[in-house]
Amino acid sequence: MSEKIRLGILGGGGDSLIGVVHRIAANMFDYYQIVGGCFNPNPTENKQFAAKIGLAPDRVYDNVDLLIAQELSLPPEERMQVVSVLTPNFLHFPMAKQLLENGFNIICEKPLTTTHAEALELQAIQDKQKVVFAVTYTYTGYPMVRQMKQMIAEGAIGKVQKVDLQYYQGWINPVIHDSEQRKSVWRLDPEKGGISCCIGDIGTHAFDMLEYVTNMRVKTLLADLNYRYPDNEMDVDGTILVRFSDYCKGVLRVSQIATAEENNFTVQIYGEKGSLKWAQENPNYLNFLQEGQPLQQLKPGHDYLHAFSLEGTKLPPGHPEGLFDAMGNIYMGVANAIIGEDFIHGAYPDIEEGVRGMLFIEKVIDSHKNGNVWVNL
Amino acid sequence: MSEKIRLGILGGGGDSLIGVVHRIAANMFDYYQIVGGCFNPNPTENKQFAAKIGLAPDRVYDNVDLLIAQELSLPPEERMQVVSVLTPNFLHFPMAKQLLENGFNIICEKPLTTTHAEALELQAIQDKQKVVFAVTYTYTGYPMVRQMKQMIAEGAIGKVQKVDLQYYQGWINPVIHDSEQRKSVWRLDPEKGGISCCIGDIGTHAFDMLEYVTNMRVKTLLADLNYRYPDNEMDVDGTILVRFSDYCKGVLRVSQIATAEENNFTVQIYGEKGSLKWAQENPNYLNFLQEGQPLQQLKPGHDYLHAFSLEGTKLPPGHPEGLFDAMGNIYMGVANAIIGEDFIHGAYPDIEEGVRGMLFIEKVIDSHKNGNVWVNL
Amino acid sequence: MSEKIRLGILGGGGDSLIGVVHRIAANMFDYYQIVGGCFNPNPTENKQFAAKIGLAPDRVYDNVDLLIAQELSLPPEERMQVVSVLTPNFLHFPMAKQLLENGFNIICEKPLTTTHAEALELQAIQDKQKVVFAVTYTYTGYPMVRQMKQMIAEGAIGKVQKVDLQYYQGWINPVIHDSEQRKSVWRLDPEKGGISCCIGDIGTHAFDMLEYVTNMRVKTLLADLNYRYPDNEMDVDGTILVRFSDYCKGVLRVSQIATAEENNFTVQIYGEKGSLKWAQENPNYLNFLQEGQPLQQLKPGHDYLHAFSLEGTKLPPGHPEGLFDAMGNIYMGVANAIIGEDFIHGAYPDIEEGVRGMLFIEKVIDSHKNGNVWVNL
Amino acid sequence: MSEKIRLGILGGGGDSLIGVVHRIAANMFDYYQIVGGCFNPNPTENKQFAAKIGLAPDRVYDNVDLLIAQELSLPPEERMQVVSVLTPNFLHFPMAKQLLENGFNIICEKPLTTTHAEALELQAIQDKQKVVFAVTYTYTGYPMVRQMKQMIAEGAIGKVQKVDLQYYQGWINPVIHDSEQRKSVWRLDPEKGGISCCIGDIGTHAFDMLEYVTNMRVKTLLADLNYRYPDNEMDVDGTILVRFSDYCKGVLRVSQIATAEENNFTVQIYGEKGSLKWAQENPNYLNFLQEGQPLQQLKPGHDYLHAFSLEGTKLPPGHPEGLFDAMGNIYMGVANAIIGEDFIHGAYPDIEEGVRGMLFIEKVIDSHKNGNVWVNL
Repeated sequence: MSEKIRLGILGGGGDSLIGVVHRIAANMFDYYQIVGGCFNPNPTENKQFAAKIGLAPDRVYDNVDLLIAQELSLPPEERMQVVSVLTPNFLHFPMAKQLLENGFNIICEKPLTTTHAEALELQAIQDKQKVVFAVTYTYTGYPMVRQMKQMIAEGAIGKVQKVDLQYYQGWINPVIHDSEQRKSVWRLDPEKGGISCCIGDIGTHAFDMLEYVTNMRVKTLLADLNYRYPDNEMDVDGTILVRFSDYCKGVLRVSQIATAEENNFTVQIYGEKGSLKWAQENPNYLNFLQEGQPLQQLKPGHDYLHAFSLEGTKLPPGHPEGLFDAMGNIYMGVANAIIGEDFIHGAYPDIEEGVRGMLFIEKVIDSHKNGNVWVNL
Repeated sequence: MSEKIRLGILGGGGDSLIGVVHRIAANMFDYYQIVGGCFNPNPTENKQFAAKIGLAPDRVYDNVDLLIAQELSLPPEERMQVVSVLTPNFLHFPMAKQLLENGFNIICEKPLTTTHAEALELQAIQDKQKVVFAVTYTYTGYPMVRQMKQMIAEGAIGKVQKVDLQYYQGWINPVIHDSEQRKSVWRLDPEKGGISCCIGDIGTHAFDMLEYVTNMRVKTLLADLNYRYPDNEMDVDGTILVRFSDYCKGVLRVSQIATAEENNFTVQIYGEKGSLKWAQENPNYLNFLQEGQPLQQLKPGHDYLHAFSLEGTKLPPGHPEGLFDAMGNIYMGVANAIIGEDFIHGAYPDIEEGVRGMLFIEKVIDSHKNGNVWVNL
Repeated sequence: MSEKIRLGILGGGGDSLIGVVHRIAANMFDYYQIVGGCFNPNPTENKQFAAKIGLAPDRVYDNVDLLIAQELSLPPEERMQVVSVLTPNFLHFPMAKQLLENGFNIICEKPLTTTHAEALELQAIQDKQKVVFAVTYTYTGYPMVRQMKQMIAEGAIGKVQKVDLQYYQGWINPVIHDSEQRKSVWRLDPEKGGISCCIGDIGTHAFDMLEYVTNMRVKTLLADLNYRYPDNEMDVDGTILVRFSDYCKGVLRVSQIATAEENNFTVQIYGEKGSLKWAQENPNYLNFLQEGQPLQQLKPGHDYLHAFSLEGTKLPPGHPEGLFDAMGNIYMGVANAIIGEDFIHGAYPDIEEGVRGMLFIEKVIDSHKNGNVWVNL
Repeated sequence: MSEKIRLGILGGGGDSLIGVVHRIAANMFDYYQIVGGCFNPNPTENKQFAAKIGLAPDRVYDNVDLLIAQELSLPPEERMQVVSVLTPNFLHFPMAKQLLENGFNIICEKPLTTTHAEALELQAIQDKQKVVFAVTYTYTGYPMVRQMKQMIAEGAIGKVQKVDLQYYQGWINPVIHDSEQRKSVWRLDPEKGGISCCIGDIGTHAFDMLEYVTNMRVKTLLADLNYRYPDNEMDVDGTILVRFSDYCKGVLRVSQIATAEENNFTVQIYGEKGSLKWAQENPNYLNFLQEGQPLQQLKPGHDYLHAFSLEGTKLPPGHPEGLFDAMGNIYMGVANAIIGEDFIHGAYPDIEEGVRGMLFIEKVIDSHKNGNVWVNL
């Protein structure tokens, strides 16, 4: 009946924030219909949540195995076409692997996996299966980020010679100073959070953004992390020197102890002819600096923007859109890929970006643990 | 099955921007299910559009009469509970009237009607029917606007002594200077646009916002409008002096020829103890000025905000939300009213605000046509 | 010996803020040497102050009569060439008149006089004497204001169609609400402050700026003032509708009860092709909006600026200059006029601007007292 | 006669920008009288310039030796009390040394010398002579920088745990890409510019500011510099990791190839309780972030500021002051020290700061040349 893409969701039930973000994003352009999923490992809560969001019970599954089995038994024109994986990080790998092997398209939250090796394994399967696989580095979906990517690709700022990205939050500060309190934070527990807190959570966003907008690959890095207290095992702050070459360098600065910062993620890319500057907390402004010219401030929805940037803007200039809209644009990119529409490279962050993210985390930790030395990516 | 509120929609089909806004808003909090409606006067296009947004054809109606008749024939637990009226302005009145008389809750786009008399007629019916009737002055849904309203109500800035609101756009500038081009704009045609262009379209937003955040009623006003050319019959700019009393005064400034402005709507409220300033293009900042103190900048999602403001924020601080979220909050307010939850006054703009808006338009035109004289509201 | 211009000063002794501003401005470009004056009506304090600022006692005079008499007795190459009048407002007229009649160039603080009639009388004398006569509307000296003036003159924004200036301060708020306290403020005492407080003090700045940057003359105005309390005789707030023609309109908004505002003076000029926006508290930014283009932000010191703007900037881009520098530029303009250098019109605010300012004050009060009616200028 | 401090100047003649800054600063508070100096090595130009700025020829000297000899021959109450050294960098050391040895107070431009060894030598003499010796790290003179220093000292943000300073300019970008052009820039010539371009010129400002506002000393650093081209011998960009301890870290980021940046110097200091952020291009705003509180924006001239901050503000809030005023405050600090007034530590940057700056440059180059390794300061 409906021509919408049939979407299933794993995780994101209850009060999950990320569940809200993905559902709103999926609904944003009338592309998707959420047809089922498994939102919660507890079967009762799973069903209750599904009812709350208006789903009929027949495609609400107790686990991913049942989901795959039953969906595969449906005719292709009824079967889920894409599954969003919003579960805790350690479940991304096994779930995505099963879904991949059974031919489902996938939208996976970041970090893609818990190790680079797992990520490579997924990538190898995806190479064979040729399904769409998106990793939701949400911020790449902002219209002005896409404009930045296009402008750099087209030479607006010339050859890139310096990069500087900052991702500062303060949310760990209130708990870090008391040894009891900090034990209560799962991200600070290596058992649950893996090998990194700050780098894994937000450093990867910065790293992905850097490679996304510049279309370049970091060659080598040197990291200095801060754990704040000797007995704290997880990084809460770090500065990472990066090099694209001996003469194109830069820095990523990330922190969760930048007290009272909210989500202060900024991007500064300097080229030989000009520069581009963007800030996540005011995402609808892109500052374009050119040698000897007045600064220009680009905003969404204008004819002077690239089609790739305009595509993601629904409202006329001056009507602010936000984070949901950025995620909505990624969902639109995935939808276009699934229905075979021509689409621009970068319309959604792909598995390669997810793999690079995992590599980045491991290399940063390596560099720091080995005495702040250069390591190659 | 679903516990969601059953929503019907009139208008908003095709490329309609306002249709997108309302559908996203309705989906934002899992409160509503869109069950049907009439999106387009052309039956074929109507059905096609309904299919595109994933609706089954059985509750897609050719017109409002059929919608009312068939929905009333359904048992109450299946019947549409609320209908959003997104049609051209002149259809608001007849459609809302029928819906009201048949007991439907209503979400109506602004302006409520085309005359104050019509608006009063609707209000009289609503008084009897006791249904929920919202008029979508969207900007009142922003969390920081709601915070402003609460702070003023609780005396944070003391007694209000001066108000200043600006709503500047430039979109008419490109067409106003050529007499042929300006004939092509329906808002500049009195046949289609009614008695006012600028005041009706954006002046009402400013006026509603003023009364919404201050909880006060303007007593008298004096307006000077600008038509830019002698043969242009519709206002494209205006400055309106307002008085709450002889010693509490202010000004509303609205324009559609403020060249290259986008949607520059700002609110400045000055009280005896402090002031509050907000700007729509950066809606996630509320500036609070106090005598002898540093300026404070309030942002969404923080514990220091009122519950009424926090309720509308889905993301942690620093993750920007925008216009869709403001409309989503109004839909949440309507949902709470329909399901009988206690709700704060102001959770949605009500019919009284719609009626005041129509009165405002007529009085502004009166004042200007009579030589920029004071008229009472 | 020194080739500097010989400057005398009347007033500005003791803790006088305006004295500091003029002395720093005079020293800014090595144009002037302060050679004497009368800084204080009390002879002892006068001499002490003169010593404090490093003046030899021989040209420190007890009053303006002695100053004129003795300076005239000096040979022209030693005589004061220009006198700055920084005394209380009511003394501007008699002092300036004497100085004019004796052929001195004059730099006079604003307001020029206490009535329009006095101002016209000075202008008549100046017409005959042909001396340089500057009225220090300080804000016209900012480099970005001068850039705005030049850009408008050269058509950068096309024909002006709308203007909006705001000058909001909050400094009277702390004293206005107590009838005893407000008696202690000389500006609120008609005996001392003349016919107007807010309009006279800051409204004139806004009015002058409007005519300065647009090179146009206001034809008619309608004012609504606020006295805040029935027994307060002096305006503390006002909104003034202005018209250049029936189709080019605007508004001046001024207040001293805009609680906790500091010196929030903003200028917005809208033309058919673009717009210019400037704010005094961040004077080193000029926003240039053009139809369909990204906003441009112009800053001082760049080659893309007009010579008239560049002339007043001493430091490279990015090194902020402030109010002293604005006044310094006015002093430079006067210096160039005195030494006969070619100079751009507008290099200093002239007596015509002083006269217009006095006319403005009287017409605003007229309009308000007569019931907020249009009055011609 | 005059009670002013007698100031001599070395260098700063002709079109020298730094000469303008120092002369305006010296005149700002009526503390100083410029009595003579040597402005130019060419005797004719020296005399012409002196005449232009209004000096009598008798104390205009052909060189520093003559200046010292003749001034020492004057009675103490006529002798220059302080000499400002504004000559090219390599002359700072010999001139300052002579002046020190002869008991003159000194105001010396930064960098203090060309090597750390020279700086230590000066410091040793100064220790004996007990004269006032200021090194003009101009930015420390801004009122909001002084407020930041005081707030940190008094614990407003708690224990500092992270620091981040940026000093980005783009001025070398236009010349760096052409090997001929870059030869024409003296700062890129090791013969003239010493061992460093970017670090020496602006890195030292960032380093001094960091230690000035935190009252802490950097223990160790690791630097990665960028020379942009293999054959360019001078750094034009660098990122420097710094540590105060194993758990209090930070970064200094400096560049002269941050294309089209002007003088974008920012300071971010994060403590356990809150944070402070300041930007040189908008120096009249200090952002104070506190855990769970709205951001506060402090501005100059308010009673809520420390006396040390207020002292340097001449105008009421909202009247912007700029770089000259920052330098003026340093001159005021020196004046107070000379006349023996009690003064706050930090009222002027002292020789210790000059010595630390030279140490910083050498250590940064060491770290980079040795493969980006940690070096102790």
